[in-house]
Amino acid sequence: MLIGNPKPTIAIMGAGALGGYYGCRLAQHGNDVHFLLRSDYDLVRKQGWKIRSVDGDFELPPEALHVYDNPDAMPKADLAVVTLKTTANSALGNLISPVLKADTIILTLQNGLGNEQLLGEQFGMERVLGGMAFVCINRLADGVIHHMDHGVIRLGEPNGGISERVNVVVKLMCDSAIRCESLENLRKGRWEKLLWNIPFNGLGALLDRSTAQLLAPADGMALVKSVMEEVRMAAKADGIELSAAAAQHQIDRTWSMGEYQTSMQIDRRAGRPMEIEAIIGAVAVLAEQHKIAVPQLRMLLNLLRLQQSNNLHGK
Amino acid sequence: MLIGNPKPTIAIMGAGALGGYYGCRLAQHGNDVHFLLRSDYDLVRKQGWKIRSVDGDFELPPEALHVYDNPDAMPKADLAVVTLKTTANSALGNLISPVLKADTIILTLQNGLGNEQLLGEQFGMERVLGGMAFVCINRLADGVIHHMDHGVIRLGEPNGGISERVNVVVKLMCDSAIRCESLENLRKGRWEKLLWNIPFNGLGALLDRSTAQLLAPADGMALVKSVMEEVRMAAKADGIELSAAAAQHQIDRTWSMGEYQTSMQIDRRAGRPMEIEAIIGAVAVLAEQHKIAVPQLRMLLNLLRLQQSNNLHGK
Repeated sequence: MLIGNPKPTIAIMGAGALGGYYGCRLAQHGNDVHFLLRSDYDLVRKQGWKIRSVDGDFELPPEALHVYDNPDAMPKADLAVVTLKTTANSALGNLISPVLKADTIILTLQNGLGNEQLLGEQFGMERVLGGMAFVCINRLADGVIHHMDHGVIRLGEPNGGISERVNVVVKLMCDSAIRCESLENLRKGRWEKLLWNIPFNGLGALLDRSTAQLLAPADGMALVKSVMEEVRMAAKADGIELSAAAAQHQIDRTWSMGEYQTSMQIDRRAGRPMEIEAIIGAVAVLAEQHKIAVPQLRMLLNLLRLQQSNNLHGK
Repeated sequence: MLIGNPKPTIAIMGAGALGGYYGCRLAQHGNDVHFLLRSDYDLVRKQGWKIRSVDGDFELPPEALHVYDNPDAMPKADLAVVTLKTTANSALGNLISPVLKADTIILTLQNGLGNEQLLGEQFGMERVLGGMAFVCINRLADGVIHHMDHGVIRLGEPNGGISERVNVVVKLMCDSAIRCESLENLRKGRWEKLLWNIPFNGLGALLDRSTAQLLAPADGMALVKSVMEEVRMAAKADGIELSAAAAQHQIDRTWSMGEYQTSMQIDRRAGRPMEIEAIIGAVAVLAEQHKIAVPQLRMLLNLLRLQQSNNLHGK
């Protein structure tokens, strides 16, 4: 039970930088948090986590942490926070079903479009909340998570509106020094984030350029703008109006950020899978289902798939 | 005078692999050929050229060659064959004007669209012929030119039709063991070549993939096909019909070639300027002037410009 429970059991499913940071904040403030890890499991089990954060550094020693490398060993959760990369979505059902009980609420903080639907199809839409983390965060070597900037989580109901359980999760986060807001229209929020993610993650990864390196040359600025136009068209087909001013605001805001490497560019450089399908594929397919031509999104999608296969498998 | 001249003076302006090969064939058969070189000048002046060709190997020793690193030192030509890369087109006027006299015919064998017009604007359209070389050729180290496959030149009048001077140049080539044909419709010939060049050079250079590596995955095949669709639309706006069957034929033919690296992919790998503007830019701009939307060509153009600047200057 999440609602009315003063100390709910929280499972962080896929604790990389993002899940690790937010889970540690929750644990730091006395919550009962259980982390599913993969690559850093041995390290964190032995050494705990060190958080270097713009909102204040702290450490959690091993004895203050519950970490697992196998979901079957985890307790049933009242709240399961999904922070797995969407590139692992094919394994998502098997990974999180061990922590579910009848009334577990599943909050996905994953990137892109379609994650709530995927969880809803497998576990029932009535369990699912969606959210977005606006945060600059990296996992360094040696169990250090580096929280560089921002950090707000916005979350809401997949079908819109503010429910009691949304308010409960928002309060849980806010009580743990995490900035968190409820979203009346989650779908619109997701599209606003996609308006940024598609050009900057997509083009940045394809060309191996930071946000500033994309925006500085006129050809790059033109590319970003015309890709954003197609994202706006796709959003409109999905019933969401994104204004031209909103697109321009994203560009202005990004200029002011300076050099920033998106997660997809970092994944490309590291030879890791990129979140192409959730961020770009889902949008291109949705637009095409609505008979809206998005030739640049389709081209970007196909180019990135080929780039990914260059990266992961050779050609 | 070219017509009626049994031994016209021929200038090969920009003798890389292509100009070197055809010029050497002409010289091998007793023609008076003068080569403008840049990077290989010292080497060829001392050692001559060695040709390894599917049509028969041969060598031209230094004493059988007229090579120059400065066009001012060259004799006036009856026929100036332009084989400079289009990336050097801004210097084209200054480079070739020293070899021109009142009746010099200028034959451009350069890639892409707009080269005849550029020469016509500077020297008068009545001097200009255009042609295309369909040839697999590479320049190796040590003054060796490797002619691997094909080799036909097709040439014609910029405004169409077969003139006497076209026939004279075709005969000159054929008498020197060069396969050469006249083209009734040069503009159509250029578009047929662009139908191949734009997807395979453009996408191959952007993704660093050979023709076979582009066509093997379904996403790559889809990209090639949809880019070809836009080339067909651009051609149509220019008054040239390219059939869907012609596009499919290009794909089938390319499959049968196996692994082939286009010149633009090789230039990318070597960190040399790519012929982006002549092959893709000229087509995108022409279509847009006709108010035809070619979003994929525009995107490919902008992506390649950024890729080029990654390559040449860092980011």
